[in-house]
Amino acid sequence: MTITSLENDKVKKCVRLKTKKYRDLEGLFLVEGFHLVEEAYKANLIDEIILIEGETCSYHFATFYVTKDVMKKLTMMETPSAIMAICHKRKMSPDLGNHLLLLDEIQDPGNLGTMIRSSKAFGIDSLVLGEGCVDLYNPKVLRSTQGMAFHMNIITRDLKELIKELKQKGIPIYGTHVDKGVNAYQLKKEEKENYALIMGNEGNGVHEELLALCDQYITIPIHQEVESLNVSVAASILLYELNRR
Amino acid sequence: MTITSLENDKVKKCVRLKTKKYRDLEGLFLVEGFHLVEEAYKANLIDEIILIEGETCSYHFATFYVTKDVMKKLTMMETPSAIMAICHKRKMSPDLGNHLLLLDEIQDPGNLGTMIRSSKAFGIDSLVLGEGCVDLYNPKVLRSTQGMAFHMNIITRDLKELIKELKQKGIPIYGTHVDKGVNAYQLKKEEKENYALIMGNEGNGVHEELLALCDQYITIPIHQEVESLNVSVAASILLYELNRR
Repeated sequence: MTITSLENDKVKKCVRLKTKKYRDLEGLFLVEGFHLVEEAYKANLIDEIILIEGETCSYHFATFYVTKDVMKKLTMMETPSAIMAICHKRKMSPDLGNHLLLLDEIQDPGNLGTMIRSSKAFGIDSLVLGEGCVDLYNPKVLRSTQGMAFHMNIITRDLKELIKELKQKGIPIYGTHVDKGVNAYQLKKEEKENYALIMGNEGNGVHEELLALCDQYITIPIHQEVESLNVSVAASILLYELNRR
Repeated sequence: MTITSLENDKVKKCVRLKTKKYRDLEGLFLVEGFHLVEEAYKANLIDEIILIEGETCSYHFATFYVTKDVMKKLTMMETPSAIMAICHKRKMSPDLGNHLLLLDEIQDPGNLGTMIRSSKAFGIDSLVLGEGCVDLYNPKVLRSTQGMAFHMNIITRDLKELIKELKQKGIPIYGTHVDKGVNAYQLKKEEKENYALIMGNEGNGVHEELLALCDQYITIPIHQEVESLNVSVAASILLYELNRR
């Protein structure tokens, strides 16, 4: 049976999941497109599949079919995909490991997604989102992660409190600085063993009170006419460098 | 005098500049916001200033004032800025230098902008856009460059032809490969002296016929579960690495 009405309860439930409020309330989120659905499947996160009528897929989950018009209502993209999935949020581990990326008020979904993808690529154990970060389950974030969000330990914490705990465990906190830090090219082997790197807001950088808690600043040497790098580029270069063995 | 009508000739001209066709035809483009206008000013590219009525600025160019409604029509952002400028395209140099980034069908404006910003940061002499790349003067591209587009030599060329010329000059062509290239961490000093790095389309990578012309492939070692990095991140990491002295 194909759902044709925008007033259908299942459809209404999905539409609600477009907002952070309902994603938080229900512990659910939507993914769209075959690639992301496949990554959610590999991570055991799928509850139900939504397909455009006439399409097929090889997943064995409760599946409901919808018309193109209904899919247009559900989609978060300009051109709706043929498949979506309702997923439950992944259970994250309180054990954060000893290679961490802390994010302070990252607001651009593309930047957050890209940093998650790079974190997985370069051996980060846990990503910690401080207050004011864009929602992890925002569809643009999930798309930019290319599904890597489903395979990473990502938690939300007060960064000031967390930094205190990390210091007690002997994990050094690294911040970035345009010119007063250690040259990234010259980081020593022992400086790469344990770390929590903190990156901040696109316009304002990391909050002063958090910067003051850093044990060391790192500087990526760049041309003097360039004020700064894109935050997800800077984070990725530093993770690449910290992963050099 | 403040322009209040959307039918005003100056307003119509600006609206036309929102399309690549007219930007190409007239050799002009628009920039928006104080930061980008300032960067265009530093590069001597401004012809005229557009201000919302009541605003002031310290630039000495022909300035016309518009109402908020007119500015809303001209803006390319959700919240219009108080200032825009009509600029002429920068004259680019045919001398491309010996550190080049070649881009093959890069379609995302944010990715192109970010790569331009990183190119300036890491000593690239010229950026070459092949066919199928998003327009350099697309407002989203210009915003992502943070104005660095105004301070870089950026040309459009047939990449296949250009690669032949570069080879004759003894400049090696580097491509990327997920696992069969030279490990990026192990690039030798002499491999960083001259190069043209080619990066390709977000979904499909570099065209086969261009890849076949590469003298060497470089691999950024990443976690096995990650298929690839974001293209602007991969380019930036390689430029950072090639700039290591």
